[in-house]
Amino acid sequence: MPVIDFYFDFSSPYGYLASTQVDAVAARRRCSVAWHPFLVGTAMKQTGRQPLAHVPIIADYMLRDVQRYARLLEIPLRVPDRFPVGAVAASRAYYWIRERDPERAVNFAKAVYRAYFVDNVDITDAKEVAIAAAARGTDCEELLAALNEDEAKLLLRRENDKALAKGVFGSPFFVIGDEPFWGVDRLEQAERWLQTRGW
Amino acid sequence: MPVIDFYFDFSSPYGYLASTQVDAVAARRRCSVAWHPFLVGTAMKQTGRQPLAHVPIIADYMLRDVQRYARLLEIPLRVPDRFPVGAVAASRAYYWIRERDPERAVNFAKAVYRAYFVDNVDITDAKEVAIAAAARGTDCEELLAALNEDEAKLLLRRENDKALAKGVFGSPFFVIGDEPFWGVDRLEQAERWLQTRGW
Repeated sequence: MPVIDFYFDFSSPYGYLASTQVDAVAARRRCSVAWHPFLVGTAMKQTGRQPLAHVPIIADYMLRDVQRYARLLEIPLRVPDRFPVGAVAASRAYYWIRERDPERAVNFAKAVYRAYFVDNVDITDAKEVAIAAAARGTDCEELLAALNEDEAKLLLRRENDKALAKGVFGSPFFVIGDEPFWGVDRLEQAERWLQTRGW
Repeated sequence: MPVIDFYFDFSSPYGYLASTQVDAVAARRRCSVAWHPFLVGTAMKQTGRQPLAHVPIIADYMLRDVQRYARLLEIPLRVPDRFPVGAVAASRAYYWIRERDPERAVNFAKAVYRAYFVDNVDITDAKEVAIAAAARGTDCEELLAALNEDEAKLLLRRENDKALAKGVFGSPFFVIGDEPFWGVDRLEQAERWLQTRGW
């Protein structure tokens, strides 16, 4: 079964948009999705870039575009009060949960995106991350303790390094086989790639 | 009749892709297109950015993406030997021709894009620009002389300033009424915007 490798940063609104669409693509194309949160800031350091939200002129456009895109997709989106943020806690939590239950981890990822981009929850706060995880079946106290331990830190570091080594530099980013697609606006082309096995 | 304001840099491959699609959008939506070449480098100075073609890692992706996109659209595209370039001569020529014959100017713009992104012509060379213009009905010698005179210089400066003042910061860029759309991948949404008068 083909796989969509789906890379995203929890702080990326375009990643959030993609997260609401990628399952439907996978269902239509009978493939699975591997969810890979990563820290896009580490990739930006490599490429000498900064988040669009910090770029004059473009930042305003980006917020307008993202909200317009969400309305078109008919999904809820509220620009969070704190935006963008570093999503270290949520990303560590994801991989720690994934070691224990991959499906639960994906549900957690969706809960984090919803908390941040719909309910304006501060996902830099480990307690908020733990609350999102608890609602999806993870023990809250156990996760909170784990976030400061080596396992979660090393898991994220390893997965982040793997993403960068694979050439991932933005969020969202899809890889199908060896073919990279950057941006929620490439998801349609990624789907077509799956359908036609390339063109 | 509604208008699509279409901003592009002659050195932008995504602008070239858009230039092959925008007429069909306009025909379907019964609107006209106003073609506005500008120098995206001047906008990048304002936003502190550099061309993707100069960004490590992303440059390789961009070239792959652009060629894949062209194949999907079934249009010819060859990455020019000199890329990217400053398209001052071609942009000055466009506005100088437009003063004399707007329709001829649009045909010239298409000829420049084709020369650069299909036939690997060096469009920084004023003589090559004049040859492209001559093939579309402009006097070659007259244009060559004009490129070094104030009229052409001032026309481009004025139009470039207007584009930046309007918030245009990338290529291609579409404006419908007050609504901005950045990127060839937003042309579909721009079309839908025309169709539904917003959403």
